[in-house]
Amino acid sequence: MTERIDGHTILIGLMAYPIRHSKSPLMHNSAFEKLGLNYVYLVFDIDGDHIADGIKALRTLGMRGSNISMPNKQRVLPYLDKLDRTSQLTRSVNTIVNDHGALTGYTTDGTGFMQSLKDENLNIIGKKMVLTGAGGAGTPIAIQTALDGVSEISIFNNANDDKWENAKRNVHIINEHTNCHATLFDLKDRSSLKNEIGKCDIYCDATAVGMKPLQDQTLISDPSWFHKDMIVFDTVYAPLETKLMKVAKKAHVKHVLNGLGMMLEQGAAAFKLWTGKEMPVDYIHKILFDSESDKNES
Amino acid sequence: MTERIDGHTILIGLMAYPIRHSKSPLMHNSAFEKLGLNYVYLVFDIDGDHIADGIKALRTLGMRGSNISMPNKQRVLPYLDKLDRTSQLTRSVNTIVNDHGALTGYTTDGTGFMQSLKDENLNIIGKKMVLTGAGGAGTPIAIQTALDGVSEISIFNNANDDKWENAKRNVHIINEHTNCHATLFDLKDRSSLKNEIGKCDIYCDATAVGMKPLQDQTLISDPSWFHKDMIVFDTVYAPLETKLMKVAKKAHVKHVLNGLGMMLEQGAAAFKLWTGKEMPVDYIHKILFDSESDKNES
Repeated sequence: MTERIDGHTILIGLMAYPIRHSKSPLMHNSAFEKLGLNYVYLVFDIDGDHIADGIKALRTLGMRGSNISMPNKQRVLPYLDKLDRTSQLTRSVNTIVNDHGALTGYTTDGTGFMQSLKDENLNIIGKKMVLTGAGGAGTPIAIQTALDGVSEISIFNNANDDKWENAKRNVHIINEHTNCHATLFDLKDRSSLKNEIGKCDIYCDATAVGMKPLQDQTLISDPSWFHKDMIVFDTVYAPLETKLMKVAKKAHVKHVLNGLGMMLEQGAAAFKLWTGKEMPVDYIHKILFDSESDKNES
Repeated sequence: MTERIDGHTILIGLMAYPIRHSKSPLMHNSAFEKLGLNYVYLVFDIDGDHIADGIKALRTLGMRGSNISMPNKQRVLPYLDKLDRTSQLTRSVNTIVNDHGALTGYTTDGTGFMQSLKDENLNIIGKKMVLTGAGGAGTPIAIQTALDGVSEISIFNNANDDKWENAKRNVHIINEHTNCHATLFDLKDRSSLKNEIGKCDIYCDATAVGMKPLQDQTLISDPSWFHKDMIVFDTVYAPLETKLMKVAKKAHVKHVLNGLGMMLEQGAAAFKLWTGKEMPVDYIHKILFDSESDKNES
């Protein structure tokens, strides 16, 4: 067996805390190996107090870039040289590219969401979306879909949780900077939620509900709220089938998606930014899916 | 093929410049893979102006440690928390170990030299050595062999080159801090060199003479200077057989060694410091030797 790492191997990081159980190293390193690209992707425990040092380390070691996750997605902004359009609007970054010392911040979660729909031959341009959540997943999805041409977004969030200010800001940004029309609702307003979902083309749940350890919960438990021709998208991918997805399937919704494709495509977008190459998506999907099946069985 | 890197993989570096063609990544990564240890060893271009930042990066990213090579072996000293005995005396470090934020500097070149002799069942304790050179290889060899019990060392260096002050310092340190007796000679004093070699048990050339691009040169071209029962050791390993070694073989010297074993054993010593495990020396020797043979053939 030939060791693929040598003196020319270029480092790419993931800076977050806690983060050691991320699937991203498996994704990126398997893709580097498959394509014979001389990079390695490593995870670093970097908390919010050390992100400035983390970015300095990235510069010092000549790393090609890094993924950024909680709690650093906003905190990293002051240490970058440029931001892409989505990062400017979300004030958040999940990917850094280092071009000979010039650091650009990108947000690939939203493009990953859009690409995962395209992968299923689904098109939501000009359509109406209902979106629950305004955090790390909900914010880039809202902004990116608005930038890409979704015509209307109804955003629901609990008026008394810590994401409410985000939700207000997202709605403001969308209405100010894009051609999309956004409206904000309190998630406790169940009749509005039911009504909006009844009129929408895609319902996306970008909260942590349905994800371990909340895997037995769902924001919508009545199948009659859904209609067959819509898309129901849960950004959760552990478990692969959430309670919400089961409810949607009971309602015979045609297109019920989990977050694995989005996770994969946000990674593929970052991979492309770092290497200039297309991630071998089917191959990596199989690797991620297989490892997830193993986990579910155990 | 299973990708061995995951979210728990620990980074070890090599900080130097220029350094990308080092054999150390092949050595350490092959050993990690062979033993199933979750580390990766990467090379970073760190010049003398950036070694402080490099050590900060090591701390920030929670790296387990690093090798240090030119031009940083002395420059790194102010940024470490502790030094082993040999590093204290040589004022030089080639290996850093990070124990939860406490950085200790080590010098494994000299122990590598001694171990490579042991690997050939050769023992120089209580013996007399002639050593040419007082640079990055000659200094740790002089200090370590003196600490380990070599009884007498005759050090030769050009009195008008930039290592002369080092050579003087090495002699002083040995006579001051060890039981070994060291004497300094000008390398241009050919009759003393011949005379000392005639009386010694081991002649070690720790200069760059014989190494590419000086591969056609040797400090000693007359086989009659050597005697059969001695050891002739050239710290060079590219080419694997230097001109000096050919001269020694013409003199039927019993034990003629190149620097591959020393290179391997200095790495094995660092490997042990980082991982607590023995490097699988025979396996790695084969990998290094094979790759070097390939290069010589091409």
